[in-house]
Amino acid sequence: MIEIEVKAFVEDPKQMERWIIELGATPIGIESQADTYYNAPYRDFGKTDEALRIRVQDGKSILTYKGPKMDSVSKTRKEVQTQIQDIDNMGQILSSLGFFPVSTVSKKRKNFRMGDFTISLDEVRNLGNFIEVEISVKDQKNYQEKVESIFRFIAKLGLKRESTIRKSYLEMILEKNEIDICSPTVE
Amino acid sequence: MIEIEVKAFVEDPKQMERWIIELGATPIGIESQADTYYNAPYRDFGKTDEALRIRVQDGKSILTYKGPKMDSVSKTRKEVQTQIQDIDNMGQILSSLGFFPVSTVSKKRKNFRMGDFTISLDEVRNLGNFIEVEISVKDQKNYQEKVESIFRFIAKLGLKRESTIRKSYLEMILEKNEIDICSPTVE
Repeated sequence: MIEIEVKAFVEDPKQMERWIIELGATPIGIESQADTYYNAPYRDFGKTDEALRIRVQDGKSILTYKGPKMDSVSKTRKEVQTQIQDIDNMGQILSSLGFFPVSTVSKKRKNFRMGDFTISLDEVRNLGNFIEVEISVKDQKNYQEKVESIFRFIAKLGLKRESTIRKSYLEMILEKNEIDICSPTVE
Repeated sequence: MIEIEVKAFVEDPKQMERWIIELGATPIGIESQADTYYNAPYRDFGKTDEALRIRVQDGKSILTYKGPKMDSVSKTRKEVQTQIQDIDNMGQILSSLGFFPVSTVSKKRKNFRMGDFTISLDEVRNLGNFIEVEISVKDQKNYQEKVESIFRFIAKLGLKRESTIRKSYLEMILEKNEIDICSPTVE
């Protein structure tokens, strides 16, 4: 699958939730997600813009691979995943193969559905609140149109194309930690 | 887990099954297994004596990592596995990470239980009939004793320690194909 995705920072998540619902979105559930990201022994996913992740969500474990971003405006990527039964053993298999955990991103996610869109309001630990709007498609056909339809939707929420974020939560957390480590307060 | 394992070629599987049952083993089921083995883009599992496998068995899919053999007499290895829900996506994740399928081993396996032993009579496509006797343990404690207990058991079946096989079915199939490819009949 290809995940066409746009993300933006949200100042007031309660206000944003009201706006989304006013625009016609239906709440479809709240999830707690803890995502552990791995890097590879043979290429640096930070440089290749790939991701390998084990997500724990409501007692289920999911292994996900994300390919590099496919354009210069959105977070569109190839995304493949499968549920796995034994998370400890999956971690051991990855470690045995030389993959190593980089960081864990924990968040509470409220999901909404509106037509083709899946809208998520994320409260990310140590990062803040965000909105992600996503469309899943099988191939790249008409995908630029779909990216534009997401930008038109978020414009209705007062979010500008220029203010969207192409970095992943993992990248943001790694950057934040680096800044924290280097900041004068730590000295 | 550590899988302590001894394998031998079986000339007459029906006779062998009678002997196993006479020695007190209980039949615990028949399975059809199709094992696809992958190699890594960054080290050759053929050289490092590791294995990464997706097994399809009775509609279930299992991802398994096997470490190098731990001694010079048996097939004892570290083995870690987890069931996976979506085999196609697991294959796609492995491919995206650069792993590539090497060969598929298909077999019909009859399982028996006798004390600590799991005994399998395998009918392997394009290879023939084999017996595998296995004990699973959590750590290496007393593991040499357990290897010896397996050798004592197979001696009762007329199988000598020297006649046991340390090669995996995958290695045997790859060797066989190489011989076939190089044999004069193919010219």
